[in-house]
Amino acid sequence: MTERIFNFSAGPAVLPEPVLAQAQRDLMALPGVGMSVLEISHRSKTFEAILADAKQSLKQLLKLPDNYHILFLQGGASLQFSMLALNFLHQNAAYVQSGSWASKAMSEAKREGQVDVLWSGKSDKYVRMPAQAELALHSAVDYVHITSNETIEGIAFQSDPDFGDVPLFCDASSDILSRPLEIEKYAMIYAGTQKNIGPAGATLVLLRDDQLSRAKSGLHTMLDYRTFTESDSLYNTPPVFTIYCVGLVARWLLEQGGLESMYQRNRAKAAKLYDVIDASSGFYSGHAAADSRSLMNVTFRLANEELESRFVKEAQALGLDGLKGHRSVGGIRASIYNAFPEAGVDALVSFMKDFQSRV
Amino acid sequence: MTERIFNFSAGPAVLPEPVLAQAQRDLMALPGVGMSVLEISHRSKTFEAILADAKQSLKQLLKLPDNYHILFLQGGASLQFSMLALNFLHQNAAYVQSGSWASKAMSEAKREGQVDVLWSGKSDKYVRMPAQAELALHSAVDYVHITSNETIEGIAFQSDPDFGDVPLFCDASSDILSRPLEIEKYAMIYAGTQKNIGPAGATLVLLRDDQLSRAKSGLHTMLDYRTFTESDSLYNTPPVFTIYCVGLVARWLLEQGGLESMYQRNRAKAAKLYDVIDASSGFYSGHAAADSRSLMNVTFRLANEELESRFVKEAQALGLDGLKGHRSVGGIRASIYNAFPEAGVDALVSFMKDFQSRV
Repeated sequence: MTERIFNFSAGPAVLPEPVLAQAQRDLMALPGVGMSVLEISHRSKTFEAILADAKQSLKQLLKLPDNYHILFLQGGASLQFSMLALNFLHQNAAYVQSGSWASKAMSEAKREGQVDVLWSGKSDKYVRMPAQAELALHSAVDYVHITSNETIEGIAFQSDPDFGDVPLFCDASSDILSRPLEIEKYAMIYAGTQKNIGPAGATLVLLRDDQLSRAKSGLHTMLDYRTFTESDSLYNTPPVFTIYCVGLVARWLLEQGGLESMYQRNRAKAAKLYDVIDASSGFYSGHAAADSRSLMNVTFRLANEELESRFVKEAQALGLDGLKGHRSVGGIRASIYNAFPEAGVDALVSFMKDFQSRV
Repeated sequence: MTERIFNFSAGPAVLPEPVLAQAQRDLMALPGVGMSVLEISHRSKTFEAILADAKQSLKQLLKLPDNYHILFLQGGASLQFSMLALNFLHQNAAYVQSGSWASKAMSEAKREGQVDVLWSGKSDKYVRMPAQAELALHSAVDYVHITSNETIEGIAFQSDPDFGDVPLFCDASSDILSRPLEIEKYAMIYAGTQKNIGPAGATLVLLRDDQLSRAKSGLHTMLDYRTFTESDSLYNTPPVFTIYCVGLVARWLLEQGGLESMYQRNRAKAAKLYDVIDASSGFYSGHAAADSRSLMNVTFRLANEELESRFVKEAQALGLDGLKGHRSVGGIRASIYNAFPEAGVDALVSFMKDFQSRV
C-alpha cells in the first residue's frame, strides 16, 4: 500500500481506510455482479440494495423516526441554501448568522423573502454560537435556520437548540454524524457529504414529512423536494458512487459503536488540541470562545502570518497536510472529522509543542 | 481480476477498463500525494492539476475554440433543463420535440417563458429526427434547443443542424464524444457524464462566452452559469472523483485516436446490430427510421412482450446485461457507448441470430 499522510483538510477530507479498501476492491467489478460500482445502472437491483442499505445504516445511526425522508441530492449545501428558500420561504424566515456559511445561506434566502436576523455574531468576528436564551422568536416566521458547525471559523452549537413548533432547518455539513442529535427538534437537516459522510458529490437531506405540504407549488422539478421524496432520490441519475461510499462510511460508523461512541472519540481528539492551545501561554491563540469550540474544525492563530506560514510549511514536511486556514480568514485550521485518526492528532500535538519550543 | 460481463446499460454505463484500473490504483493513495483521490481538497494543487488536465483533454478532443467555457456542474441534464431557461429564456424559445428527453426539457422551460414547438415527432412516436429543411425559424427566439440523441427512443441527429446566428442549445447527454462536432454551431452543449464521459455525478457544460452577457440577473448563485465560469467550476466543492474519472476517460479517448476514430468505431459497432435487425425479415423490428438511427442506443422490438422478456432473460444468462428497454417504452435497447467493447457487440449479434433461429 502506498504510504498515506495525515490529511487535516476541511473537506473533501479523510475517509476511513476500510472504506477506501472496499471501494478499491469493487472498482473493477462488484463481487457477483461483473461490473464496477461506477458502471451499475441506478435502476438495477444492485443499486437499489446499495441505496436501501445506505439509508438503513443512516437511519440506525441517527435514530431517525419513520416520518423523516432520507434524500440524496446534488449541488452541496450551497444549492440547499437556495432550494430550501424556494420551497419553504413564503414570507419571512429567521436566520442565525453564526459565520461564513450562515451568511451565504442568508444571501440566497433573501432572493425569496424577508430574512430576519435572529442573532448575529458578525460584530464579534464569529467567535461563538448564541445561547438558547438569545434565540427567542418575537414574531411568526416560516422557519428558523441555523448552521450547527461553522467550518471556517471553527465554532459549533454544543447541543440542539429548541424552537418548539417552529420548523428548524439546519446546515450540518461539517458536523453531521459527529455526535447524537435530538433529531425531532429539526424539520430539515442537510449536509454536503464531503466532510463527515463520504467523498464529494452528494448532499444528504433529512426532511420531516410534514414539511412537504408547506412547500410552494410550480417549482422546477429538480428544485422541488417532492421530486426526491416521491422517487426515492431516483428521479434522474443520482451520484451512484458517492451514495455507495456513504453507505460504507455509515456501516463503518455502526461498527465503531455509533454516534455516542464517535462523540466520545471526537471530544477526546479535539481536547488534545485545545489543551495544547490553552497551555501555550498565548503562543497559539484559539479563535473560538471556550463554550463554542468545534470538535471538527480546530482554528487558531500564531503571532503573525509569517509564523503561521512557517508552521504550515514545517507541518507539511512532516506529513501533516491541509492545516492552512480558509483563505477568507487565514490562520490555522485542523479539521479532525470522524475518520481522522487519533495518531494524526497526536502527531500534530507533538509538532505544536516542538514548534513552540523552537521559535 | 473478477470476471466482467457485457454491460449494455443506458447510463451509468460501461467505462474503459484502463480507466477503472487507474482509478482503482489511486483509490487508497494517489502516487506521491499520500491521500486517496476521494480525499483530496478541491483547493489543492493536486486537484487543480486534475481539473486542468481534464479540461485540456476535452478541449483537444472536441477541438474547442478558446471562447468556450468547460464547466462541471451537478444535477444532470434534468437540472440543466431548468437552469438554461432560468438564465436565457427571456421571452420565447424554440424547441425540437424529438423524444422523451426533449419533452422534459420543454416542460421545465415553460415555467420561464413561451416554448415554441419548432418541430415535433410525437405523433409519429419519435421514430426520426427532423431534416434541416424542417427547422426553419419564422420569428425571433431567445434560443433553439435540440437533443442530439434521444437515449430512450434511440434516434439521433446525423449531423449538426444550422441555425445561423440564433443561439443553439443542445442536450448531448447520450452522444457527446461519440463523433466530431461542428462546435461553432452551438452556443451551449450539456451532458450528464454518466453515459459517454465517465461515471455519474457531474454535468459537463460547454458554454460559449458570448452567452454570459445575455443571462438574466438576480439568479440564485448555484443556478447562474456565471458562478461557474467565474470560479472555474470551484465556487463550492465540485464532484472531485467524477471529474478525475472524466479526465481519465478523455485521455483514453485521445489515446484511441480521438473523436474521428471513435466515430468510425461507433459506426462499425452499430452497423453490426442494425444489420442483424435488417436481415431478420422482421423478427427484430428497429424503432428508428433508417436515416435517424442512433449509434449509441440501438432500439428494437420483437413480436410481443413475452418474446422480449425471454430475449432479455436469455441474454442476461449469457452475461449480456441491461438490454431491457426504458420502462416508458418497453422493447429492447442495446446501449453501446464509446467504451462498450466490440466483443460485446459480437456476442449480442451471435445471440440475436441464435435466438431467432430457435424460436
